[in-house]
Amino acid sequence: MAPVQPAARSSEVPADLAAELAFAERCAELARETVRLHFRQVLQVNTKADASPVTVADQLAEQEMRRLISQSFPHHGILGEEEGPTGRTEAELTATEWLWVLDPIDGTRAFVTGRPTFCTLISLFHRGVPVLGVIDQPITRERWIGVRGQPTRYVAELPGRPGTRQSVTLETAELSCTAPEIIRPERQADFRRLAGRVNRVSWGGDAYAYGLLALGQIDLIAEDTLKPWDWGALVPVIEGAGGTITDWQGRPLSLQSDGSVLASANRPLACEARALLNISRS
Amino acid sequence: MAPVQPAARSSEVPADLAAELAFAERCAELARETVRLHFRQVLQVNTKADASPVTVADQLAEQEMRRLISQSFPHHGILGEEEGPTGRTEAELTATEWLWVLDPIDGTRAFVTGRPTFCTLISLFHRGVPVLGVIDQPITRERWIGVRGQPTRYVAELPGRPGTRQSVTLETAELSCTAPEIIRPERQADFRRLAGRVNRVSWGGDAYAYGLLALGQIDLIAEDTLKPWDWGALVPVIEGAGGTITDWQGRPLSLQSDGSVLASANRPLACEARALLNISRS
Repeated sequence: MAPVQPAARSSEVPADLAAELAFAERCAELARETVRLHFRQVLQVNTKADASPVTVADQLAEQEMRRLISQSFPHHGILGEEEGPTGRTEAELTATEWLWVLDPIDGTRAFVTGRPTFCTLISLFHRGVPVLGVIDQPITRERWIGVRGQPTRYVAELPGRPGTRQSVTLETAELSCTAPEIIRPERQADFRRLAGRVNRVSWGGDAYAYGLLALGQIDLIAEDTLKPWDWGALVPVIEGAGGTITDWQGRPLSLQSDGSVLASANRPLACEARALLNISRS
Repeated sequence: MAPVQPAARSSEVPADLAAELAFAERCAELARETVRLHFRQVLQVNTKADASPVTVADQLAEQEMRRLISQSFPHHGILGEEEGPTGRTEAELTATEWLWVLDPIDGTRAFVTGRPTFCTLISLFHRGVPVLGVIDQPITRERWIGVRGQPTRYVAELPGRPGTRQSVTLETAELSCTAPEIIRPERQADFRRLAGRVNRVSWGGDAYAYGLLALGQIDLIAEDTLKPWDWGALVPVIEGAGGTITDWQGRPLSLQSDGSVLASANRPLACEARALLNISRS
């Protein structure tokens, strides 16, 4: 496959990412087929140093995507959940103009237990800012597509329309979090303070919950200890649907972020949530 | 519709429940269509006295199922999550020879947030023992069918084969629980003791997780504060797939159960789990 020309080289975020988007969708399609083959099959579950699960499907899908990116965009950096920043130091990656950030199976816990709520995440960062994100659920065949500055698209047979709930307040909000364990011990009290003030809390979900927030089904997600491959694809999707996504202090997410992530259906709700999450720091 | 003749009137569990099973599947089909219409639509979410969510779809589906049961089995009792034991006292229901126990949307929290992991639960109790259970996921169109004494069937396009993991031990087990909040405060330490010894814990799932246990994807589920409509349909499905399901003390689940539920892929694993869950009582 011939290398695709980069959309732009200016210091501004490029307006047109059509080639990159088409490519990202191809990657998602490829990952979908690879991952589907391994869903609910007998798995060889390895154990990584940090004890999070790694599946064969995860590794295969990342290798495939890396191969395609290297062919099409040989000058772009790649940061993947499975293999890390191959051939480059973290500092070099941060300085890379274009960086693909991949997580073939976000929610390995969901995948390993046979739940159709894990996702493939593909994002492209431009000078540290995620400008393109694809969230794909291979089993239900749902796909969210976000490009910075454009409205989010949702491509699926299941019902749903992009657009966060703009009028929801703390008292009526649906809060979601993947698991209590992903919140650092010193932040547990902050999370519980927020959880005690919303309408309802639901658990599980991983990136899929952010897709549901973009469809106006969930209003707040507060999580912690997330890595760039966990949140990269979510940023353009959430923002393009009318929501906000920052760290718990309200700062834009970056490759140097502290791992905390707060996604919200609207700006006033995010402000209310931050006030509760940061009482112990103020 | 003419009333269906009961399969048996003996004091033994009837061997043949073919008419009842066909009827239960008709109910599931009906609920599936009703519920699908309301998935990810703008919902009128009411608030019940116990603050758990009630949706329009939930109420409509239960009304439809109740109507069908009253027509086909006029002498059978009905206990539904939404309307309770209509026209009978709890004591009368317990003494009923045949009792349909229904939950049109188990996992309303999942339903309300747009996750395709809630379930319709339909079960038939014979003298207090659940002898027939159907777990249905309307969006992914998965259905688990359990009849006491028969192998569990799984009818779906998604991959999966009934059969729990018979050789899994505590150290390799996948533990699941819907939400930390469903465990009573005085049992939280017991749950955490168990969670600390297994391979991994995943959250969310409701009845769907029991379906996944029957497919060998999850090995242990420890929950609390469950009602008969939450676990009635699960018992024949889990047992017919080779697993066990009891309260945390190992007693069979009954209409008088204390709300604790422990499902396990195999008997030795259940024994190990009970030992950890009951340290504070021994």
